[in-house]
Amino acid sequence: MLMRLFILLLFVAVPALAEEHMLVKKNEFRMDSYTTFFGGQIKDLRVGWESYGKLNDDRSNAILITHYFSGNSHAAGVYSKDDEEPGYWDAIIGPGKAIDTNKFFVISVDSLVNLSAYDEHVITTGPASINPDTGKPYGLSFPVVTMRDFVNIQREVLRVLGIKSLYAVAGPSMGSMQAIEWASAYPDEVPRMISVIGSAGADAWTKALLDQWTWPIKLDPAWNNGDYYNDEKTNYPTTGLTQALALITQVALYPDFFNQTGDLLPKDEKATLASSVTNDTEIVKWLMQRAGERVEGMDANHLLYLVRANQLFLTGMEDSLTEGLKRITAKTLFITASTDLLLMPYHAELAYKELKALNNDTQLHVIEGPLGHLEGVAGIAKASQWISDFLQE
Amino acid sequence: MLMRLFILLLFVAVPALAEEHMLVKKNEFRMDSYTTFFGGQIKDLRVGWESYGKLNDDRSNAILITHYFSGNSHAAGVYSKDDEEPGYWDAIIGPGKAIDTNKFFVISVDSLVNLSAYDEHVITTGPASINPDTGKPYGLSFPVVTMRDFVNIQREVLRVLGIKSLYAVAGPSMGSMQAIEWASAYPDEVPRMISVIGSAGADAWTKALLDQWTWPIKLDPAWNNGDYYNDEKTNYPTTGLTQALALITQVALYPDFFNQTGDLLPKDEKATLASSVTNDTEIVKWLMQRAGERVEGMDANHLLYLVRANQLFLTGMEDSLTEGLKRITAKTLFITASTDLLLMPYHAELAYKELKALNNDTQLHVIEGPLGHLEGVAGIAKASQWISDFLQE
Repeated sequence: MLMRLFILLLFVAVPALAEEHMLVKKNEFRMDSYTTFFGGQIKDLRVGWESYGKLNDDRSNAILITHYFSGNSHAAGVYSKDDEEPGYWDAIIGPGKAIDTNKFFVISVDSLVNLSAYDEHVITTGPASINPDTGKPYGLSFPVVTMRDFVNIQREVLRVLGIKSLYAVAGPSMGSMQAIEWASAYPDEVPRMISVIGSAGADAWTKALLDQWTWPIKLDPAWNNGDYYNDEKTNYPTTGLTQALALITQVALYPDFFNQTGDLLPKDEKATLASSVTNDTEIVKWLMQRAGERVEGMDANHLLYLVRANQLFLTGMEDSLTEGLKRITAKTLFITASTDLLLMPYHAELAYKELKALNNDTQLHVIEGPLGHLEGVAGIAKASQWISDFLQE
Repeated sequence: MLMRLFILLLFVAVPALAEEHMLVKKNEFRMDSYTTFFGGQIKDLRVGWESYGKLNDDRSNAILITHYFSGNSHAAGVYSKDDEEPGYWDAIIGPGKAIDTNKFFVISVDSLVNLSAYDEHVITTGPASINPDTGKPYGLSFPVVTMRDFVNIQREVLRVLGIKSLYAVAGPSMGSMQAIEWASAYPDEVPRMISVIGSAGADAWTKALLDQWTWPIKLDPAWNNGDYYNDEKTNYPTTGLTQALALITQVALYPDFFNQTGDLLPKDEKATLASSVTNDTEIVKWLMQRAGERVEGMDANHLLYLVRANQLFLTGMEDSLTEGLKRITAKTLFITASTDLLLMPYHAELAYKELKALNNDTQLHVIEGPLGHLEGVAGIAKASQWISDFLQE
């Protein structure tokens, strides 16, 4: 059963191994200092960025891709010919694809407090970064950051490249929040906005669901109130972080996917479960193994900061959803996943209806499939035509 | 906002304060020894039970109510005139109600390994109980138990009362599993079976979801591999157990309920969240406070055993769902909740369709409402007519 699930997920991650992918590289952007939306200071800020396609002479063909919670700016392409895992939206970004790199300059930026702080392909600044003032990691002294901060850093990267206005902004999940935030905060620079499996604001349900991911980290004694950094990286809150990733993995999927694995209770599993309450089920072993592999490059405090940025999100950082949406002049495209359990379709429907009532040029489409929230990433090819049509108009 | 949620939940728990409720009491059932389905031994077994209505002369009017995960045999009535919280299905159990105590003798039994091990109104045997052989609590040496064991103990209680056959068995959630198990294990004794917000077998998704509730307990250093019992009840894994209850509370509800609480991000909450990642959101404070109150009478190891019993459930303890359902001769009624995120309606639909294909006299109804899984408990009044009709036939 484990093998079968692995193969399924491999298939999901690598839809077309035979295809020739774009070769891409990570670039670094630096700022001496940055003031956050809430007035915090970050010195020697660094984030990574990638781009696909060519910027045209009048710099009018830039499409910004904003990434999801556990993602980074690797939206498309591969890092080398041997790299078997292309960027997460490779199915729609490339020559002749829905976001056509023959026409568009596509760019993406690693978020602040990126989850994958120790991933060789991610450049980020967050609690695991060295505070130049102390020579030690920030830990919980790092300021709380918001979607607006992610957006503002992206805007600085664009400015350096001479891009004053986007052709479009698009992103899945947390990336959708940034896309909506762009359209509300800088309406003159965003004529087109694509929100995939997204939300225009964290409601009570979502704030609590996101918070669940922080509980195992804070319960892990190794977390030590966020003060665990050492050069040897020993005694990190890995158990808590692994549980957090396992929670995320399940809620981002859907029963149909888990339940492809066959019999309800195979005889050998029954015997194992019967002999001790501490023996794990096959599906839990699989979840934990997969989560364990993923957390290797991740930082526990960064997860807490990402959750907080999501909990604090409300379009435009205004006091109500309507005030935030009212500022949007972009035409908008919302794409939901019918089986989404993490940001259920009601989130995007609410924003879509409000915008419609505000006379925005808006449309909504639904991806069907068994992968739940992940349909917005692994199933994005199903949205190709909607995205392609939306960008041509 | 907190007050408003509390009031909502009180309303949910106490649908009709003005009503005169039946006065009920908890009885104790004891067995010198019991052999579990998997061959484990439990000595000096004790469980509580309650009954409503009168057993008729030929003992043919007994309806057994099987309780949910965090419930007990207090299905209806109150313990005193001052008791403001009637049993969980009081809306349908009582004189003239859907399960009419003027006609039926209604009985319910506290489960083994009941979650509320320290509740004055619950009598149970589990890891927190004293093992007569050692004079110390069983802890993890307590044998793994199953739905079949819950059923077998209930059957022993019925035998003592001279009841050889039921008029019907009915239960919500984990109670539904026991009801289905009754109908499959002892078909000659079960002519009618009512499954509410239930399942006929734990699939991979459900096994993993249930397992999530055990993670914070096992991560809590105070759990100490299940060995934490002491007379002063100090240093119990309360933090882990509270997190587990908070996880259960959220997944048993639905966004519509959480999101009745007003603004997405009130100004004062925004300021609180902005100042530190360790400051909690209002909804999380509410969840944790409510969970904290509920865990006072609960035992962490008991939760692990309950999860395991649910993970091991497959109708009839057979090797496939069809084999288990094939044994059922009872006519059957399935009731789902349209917003259920814990045991989504597909569970009951699967059992219903399989039984239909097996020519069982079966029907399926859906409760609509914003309470998610909890609609099967707090919203059960909506199912009154279906249940009443089903029992009259």
